[in-house]
Amino acid sequence: MRVLILHGPNLNTLGVREPAIYGHITLDEINTRLRELAATLGAELDIYQSNSEGALIDYLQQSQCDAVVINPGALTHYGLSLRDALAAVTVPIIEVHLSNVYAREAFRHESVVAPVVTGQICGLGWRSYAAALRTLCEMAAKED
Amino acid sequence: MRVLILHGPNLNTLGVREPAIYGHITLDEINTRLRELAATLGAELDIYQSNSEGALIDYLQQSQCDAVVINPGALTHYGLSLRDALAAVTVPIIEVHLSNVYAREAFRHESVVAPVVTGQICGLGWRSYAAALRTLCEMAAKED
Amino acid sequence: MRVLILHGPNLNTLGVREPAIYGHITLDEINTRLRELAATLGAELDIYQSNSEGALIDYLQQSQCDAVVINPGALTHYGLSLRDALAAVTVPIIEVHLSNVYAREAFRHESVVAPVVTGQICGLGWRSYAAALRTLCEMAAKED
Amino acid sequence: MRVLILHGPNLNTLGVREPAIYGHITLDEINTRLRELAATLGAELDIYQSNSEGALIDYLQQSQCDAVVINPGALTHYGLSLRDALAAVTVPIIEVHLSNVYAREAFRHESVVAPVVTGQICGLGWRSYAAALRTLCEMAAKED
Amino acid sequence: MRVLILHGPNLNTLGVREPAIYGHITLDEINTRLRELAATLGAELDIYQSNSEGALIDYLQQSQCDAVVINPGALTHYGLSLRDALAAVTVPIIEVHLSNVYAREAFRHESVVAPVVTGQICGLGWRSYAAALRTLCEMAAKED
Amino acid sequence: MRVLILHGPNLNTLGVREPAIYGHITLDEINTRLRELAATLGAELDIYQSNSEGALIDYLQQSQCDAVVINPGALTHYGLSLRDALAAVTVPIIEVHLSNVYAREAFRHESVVAPVVTGQICGLGWRSYAAALRTLCEMAAKED
Amino acid sequence: MRVLILHGPNLNTLGVREPAIYGHITLDEINTRLRELAATLGAELDIYQSNSEGALIDYLQQSQCDAVVINPGALTHYGLSLRDALAAVTVPIIEVHLSNVYAREAFRHESVVAPVVTGQICGLGWRSYAAALRTLCEMAAKED
Amino acid sequence: MRVLILHGPNLNTLGVREPAIYGHITLDEINTRLRELAATLGAELDIYQSNSEGALIDYLQQSQCDAVVINPGALTHYGLSLRDALAAVTVPIIEVHLSNVYAREAFRHESVVAPVVTGQICGLGWRSYAAALRTLCEMAAKED
Amino acid sequence: MRVLILHGPNLNTLGVREPAIYGHITLDEINTRLRELAATLGAELDIYQSNSEGALIDYLQQSQCDAVVINPGALTHYGLSLRDALAAVTVPIIEVHLSNVYAREAFRHESVVAPVVTGQICGLGWRSYAAALRTLCEMAAKED
Amino acid sequence: MRVLILHGPNLNTLGVREPAIYGHITLDEINTRLRELAATLGAELDIYQSNSEGALIDYLQQSQCDAVVINPGALTHYGLSLRDALAAVTVPIIEVHLSNVYAREAFRHESVVAPVVTGQICGLGWRSYAAALRTLCEMAAKED
Amino acid sequence: MRVLILHGPNLNTLGVREPAIYGHITLDEINTRLRELAATLGAELDIYQSNSEGALIDYLQQSQCDAVVINPGALTHYGLSLRDALAAVTVPIIEVHLSNVYAREAFRHESVVAPVVTGQICGLGWRSYAAALRTLCEMAAKED
Amino acid sequence: MRVLILHGPNLNTLGVREPAIYGHITLDEINTRLRELAATLGAELDIYQSNSEGALIDYLQQSQCDAVVINPGALTHYGLSLRDALAAVTVPIIEVHLSNVYAREAFRHESVVAPVVTGQICGLGWRSYAAALRTLCEMAAKED
Repeated sequence: MRVLILHGPNLNTLGVREPAIYGHITLDEINTRLRELAATLGAELDIYQSNSEGALIDYLQQSQCDAVVINPGALTHYGLSLRDALAAVTVPIIEVHLSNVYAREAFRHESVVAPVVTGQICGLGWRSYAAALRTLCEMAAKED
Repeated sequence: MRVLILHGPNLNTLGVREPAIYGHITLDEINTRLRELAATLGAELDIYQSNSEGALIDYLQQSQCDAVVINPGALTHYGLSLRDALAAVTVPIIEVHLSNVYAREAFRHESVVAPVVTGQICGLGWRSYAAALRTLCEMAAKED
Repeated sequence: MRVLILHGPNLNTLGVREPAIYGHITLDEINTRLRELAATLGAELDIYQSNSEGALIDYLQQSQCDAVVINPGALTHYGLSLRDALAAVTVPIIEVHLSNVYAREAFRHESVVAPVVTGQICGLGWRSYAAALRTLCEMAAKED
Repeated sequence: MRVLILHGPNLNTLGVREPAIYGHITLDEINTRLRELAATLGAELDIYQSNSEGALIDYLQQSQCDAVVINPGALTHYGLSLRDALAAVTVPIIEVHLSNVYAREAFRHESVVAPVVTGQICGLGWRSYAAALRTLCEMAAKED
Repeated sequence: MRVLILHGPNLNTLGVREPAIYGHITLDEINTRLRELAATLGAELDIYQSNSEGALIDYLQQSQCDAVVINPGALTHYGLSLRDALAAVTVPIIEVHLSNVYAREAFRHESVVAPVVTGQICGLGWRSYAAALRTLCEMAAKED
Repeated sequence: MRVLILHGPNLNTLGVREPAIYGHITLDEINTRLRELAATLGAELDIYQSNSEGALIDYLQQSQCDAVVINPGALTHYGLSLRDALAAVTVPIIEVHLSNVYAREAFRHESVVAPVVTGQICGLGWRSYAAALRTLCEMAAKED
Repeated sequence: MRVLILHGPNLNTLGVREPAIYGHITLDEINTRLRELAATLGAELDIYQSNSEGALIDYLQQSQCDAVVINPGALTHYGLSLRDALAAVTVPIIEVHLSNVYAREAFRHESVVAPVVTGQICGLGWRSYAAALRTLCEMAAKED
Repeated sequence: MRVLILHGPNLNTLGVREPAIYGHITLDEINTRLRELAATLGAELDIYQSNSEGALIDYLQQSQCDAVVINPGALTHYGLSLRDALAAVTVPIIEVHLSNVYAREAFRHESVVAPVVTGQICGLGWRSYAAALRTLCEMAAKED
Repeated sequence: MRVLILHGPNLNTLGVREPAIYGHITLDEINTRLRELAATLGAELDIYQSNSEGALIDYLQQSQCDAVVINPGALTHYGLSLRDALAAVTVPIIEVHLSNVYAREAFRHESVVAPVVTGQICGLGWRSYAAALRTLCEMAAKED
Repeated sequence: MRVLILHGPNLNTLGVREPAIYGHITLDEINTRLRELAATLGAELDIYQSNSEGALIDYLQQSQCDAVVINPGALTHYGLSLRDALAAVTVPIIEVHLSNVYAREAFRHESVVAPVVTGQICGLGWRSYAAALRTLCEMAAKED
Repeated sequence: MRVLILHGPNLNTLGVREPAIYGHITLDEINTRLRELAATLGAELDIYQSNSEGALIDYLQQSQCDAVVINPGALTHYGLSLRDALAAVTVPIIEVHLSNVYAREAFRHESVVAPVVTGQICGLGWRSYAAALRTLCEMAAKED
Repeated sequence: MRVLILHGPNLNTLGVREPAIYGHITLDEINTRLRELAATLGAELDIYQSNSEGALIDYLQQSQCDAVVINPGALTHYGLSLRDALAAVTVPIIEVHLSNVYAREAFRHESVVAPVVTGQICGLGWRSYAAALRTLCEMAAKED
């Protein structure tokens, strides 16, 4: 099984940017942990980060994968082109956020992406990604 | 470790109520699966369902637990008393939903509970509960 | 034919509460008139009143009936849990109100229950119930 | 007793227009059934349909009647001139709708007419008219 | 000088309709007083009333006049076709209302016609018309 | 008969301030014309201008008059203290505006003063004042 | 092939009304050009204009045609009865506007008609009609 | 004189729940102080707390008292059933809040209960109750 | 202890202005009663009224006092400069209103001042001031 | 004559992405048909697609063309930078959409681009492009 | 060159009022620094502060100056009379704020004054004034 | 001292694009003037322009600088990813605009960037940049 992990704008500076909100863990460390978890689950990861909505859409359109985990960053709240690209994907998608977006500024309470994904996980730090990855693998393994 | 699982209004009729949205699995079946998962994780579950907001608050206030998983049902959208009761809880709380509430009616897009919980998981069917339970155990086991 | 009559919060004080709006008739008198009407229509009534949303949902879930007449009282405007419980009912439901709710305060203009019932009757005093009961019996008797 | 039945825009095409929503019964058939019911109630009907708001107001102003049943069609949602004409009527008025307007598009949820009528009945098909007619006759017969 | 006086929907029932709001004076009496005033001002009146927006537009388009006084009745609040017809008129127009619309229901506070007329007079009973007529004559007589 | 003429903020610079909107006539010229008109009507004028809401309220409270003409300037849109002072006045009040406020910026479309005055005249330049003054005199002279 | 061309309120004054917005071409000239184009396309035109919403609905209900081109004028923004009449039509409909309504007043940005038509063309002057007519003919001629 | 003191949801955990907002005083301590104050005022207290809206309404309906002090907790903002129950009470009612609800989250700024009570006191800690109790006694003692 | 009592616009006409809402008591009578109450509490009063927001701010900035009672009148709803002045005050402040502002016009439901004061009391007539004064003295006397 | 055809985000996956909404035709097929049509009209096409707003703006700024046809995809609803780039273009622009955006989700009803283009065509599938291209050529050919 | 510096309500307490937001610098110190800067720029300053909107307007109307720097304080958000006074000024005006108003309470995000001034500078402490003063002098010195 | 100057979308066409709004000066000319000013201030400039939000974020993240001046162009109003990137910057940032955005279209009145920058300067043409640059240098030079 092959899972695409998409990181949106500014996630490349994780661990440096506003650690009071996002913690001290870096994106490389998260990717390493996810790869370790994927190995135990028998999954293969395809990981990509970009600060550009267009580049994220390009990558998503060309990807060959069985499931998607996406943290759209601030595009969550206005990236309607990304939404349309996700709506065209037929494999399961889980939207993740490191922080609890509903406990922050009002503009972060609405996700334009949420209506077209399978599910959403937020507020669990890097474990939001881990829980998404594990569940996608379980869903692929059996049907119920 | 002891985890409180709270099921809100109408979840007792799961498997019967609107299966097109919520699936055919019953609440008893979900509870059984969660107890099995808890056993493998070394956790003990305290499970409670009620159609009354007041009864849910009573139960929550008197519970002795290390973490909470709550599916508030429709109270999600107007149960401000439940919100205040959750805000007073000092252990981690994860709010879960069976369906992707953001892909349904507009009134289900706003959760008055979300700002006072640790995180939120939705749209993964009974696995929303499972991912929440597993993550709470992991968070308790180690710190990062 | 068995019809469930559900009276929501504060209807037990009818005839005493704000007679300028709701009239001098008591709930017992309404129930008596409805039972007399039911007898002429060959229907059996199951009548229940509660001030608690949870108790109304409990009663509704366990009831065996062929049709429902419900006056949700003020739950009309925020009782989303009751709404979900009604949405799970497969027999016809008519929502009734004694007064013309649309000629009163703005918050009474929106019914969160209305989208999931069969029809709505308001502004006719106790006859809102009578017209609902009669119509449900007629609908059951023949199909068009 | 003389009752005015007013049918608003597009009701003349009933049975043809969007039968999935409005059913297969035609306006002539409804009128026939209402005349039969009126006969059993000792009432006389004056029935009028128009696609023009101005013509409906003209007819209403000149009518001699003891009660009004009106289905304003889409004028329900913007016909403020019709509203003013109805507000000037001193006999009882019941607003009726074939379908449950509260379960349809958002613009159909607000009735500008509702605040100036005696009551409203919707969602019962042609029986919305019948229930209105019967209730108006009962209200005229005795006082309570 | 020729002045067109346009009376909108329901003004033909003036003196009968809701006298608590509009007073006991009839439209004929108002027209008589306006004709008397016009005589003293050396003006000729062309007076027309209709309950139909289309008819009012037809009349306005074909009229030959030097100024317009219009009481659009409830069309004030939604008659955008009438607005467009008035916007095409190149002579001065004064919009009048018998009652103080700003002290009544919220929907009467916005006039879709006001942005395309010269001025507005309201709340002075029949004298709203009289003041409009006199001012239009004065404006025509001299320039400042 | 004694009429109070109140001019609100910035009206003292009339004729200089934005002549494209307000014209070239000065406040002194308007006052002169109004005094001439008052003489022909047998009325006495008490004229006051201030840029301060508090000073306008002070003057209004202490004034002995039989009617009020007020142009509140921009206070029209937020001067709730002035509104309360006007609401306490028991003689007739007409609110006037030189320009057609409904054809200008959106914030000028709402008058917080309008609900507590007798009537409103706008868009007729200095003649808005003249029409108000004449009508108040006529209303005082006879009753209908 | 027979195409119904419906012109809404005020279009009969085209070329005279506000030429800065709508241009100098008259409705007769547009109709002539459309008839010439129809001849080259092998289509027959049925053209009707009215200032009355009711008359437009009457005409539409009785028409026998294979396609409709409609310019609803200002009814675009509030004509819900016209909308219901169009929703009952089963042949293709194209809504047209001479001017770019999205570059004008805010109230012209919403069309209550648009959700029930096949497509919309605006801002191209008389060519909005021409493009609609040609496309309807092409769509009827072949399938893709 | 007999005064009913009603405490809404979560007030039973006072002194423990969020002391930064609500202080360290417990509900028992507040009740003791109020009983002492009542003794000096010659009043008798009937005190009740519940987390269930229905139970609060039940208690209120059956109570025999001369005045009511109510702190509805979070029900303040959505408990329309409680509102209706309070509206039916004919003795004076004062709504109290420990904290200044207008200085907190936006959803706490609107009280659905406020329009049907005699007055409201907030922000004074346990003295909000005391001031209410004292004033109710004074109002009962003399009239002005 | 020295308490500043600030009366906002129009309160000087109390007893005359709209007695149906505000009662027949005059401001002098209220001040006398407050001075009598202050004497029993061992407090000294500094009382000031103005119709001008600027004058109220000037007085407040220069005052030497231990607590403030303010009835801002209509400035409650738009006086943001007064709000800023109050926010700079470090002694306790209680905002009072004679009437229940939440049961009146919608614009009176929002207080721009409330977020920066210690507490608010309304709807108790002159006793709103008395309860505020007494509570401020009690708060100064002991700490809890 | 040279016409620039700009295709926005996700249009490169046409025919694959959500065929229920957009049909089975691919972007290459549309481009082929447009080139064929252009040949018959004597026009030359410059066609460009990108998923990136920045790239679309770059291309537009550097293009040498006599007219523009643009389908902005989801950028229609939030691409204000694209809007500013189009506003700077002095040749005619027509905005096109394959589907009837006004019959879809609410967020698709507003185009931030529409106010700065010449006209808009939607809902006609690939023929939206064709009608735009033909009209631009006709407009260039002659003046009226 | 003569520059008018206007300070609005509460700025006279600068350095004392809420230093966490506004800093410890006093208004006198700001004025001294601005006078020193003006001397180096060859400009003359006319400085005025008031807590009253009316007094600020009076001063502005009578001032003889070549440019204006204004910090309207809280009047920024509701002082429409001040706005009208500024709109009548024909010399350049720069609005300044000490703090970044866009990072504070929501009501401070809208300036009713901004649309009628030349430019705005905020968030730079006393240097907001300095930058405004220098730029106005540069703009007066040369044209580009 | 090193200052990063960021120019957002469409600023590369300055002097050509809509000169009525933005003037005839080109971006190269602005950059030249800023470099001259920087030389006098002892600062070094790093200047970058892009039409792509992603590219601007990339550049900002990698830049080594002591302060930032940014004109986000239309991204000001929706570029939440750019906002997050700016929020992560720890050096002072000033947002600048050539035109007075508050005097233009409504959508330009809100800046999503403003809450995370130090200050904002607008409406002064190229001098908005100059004033920002000079102030940042002064702020770096000394502390107050």
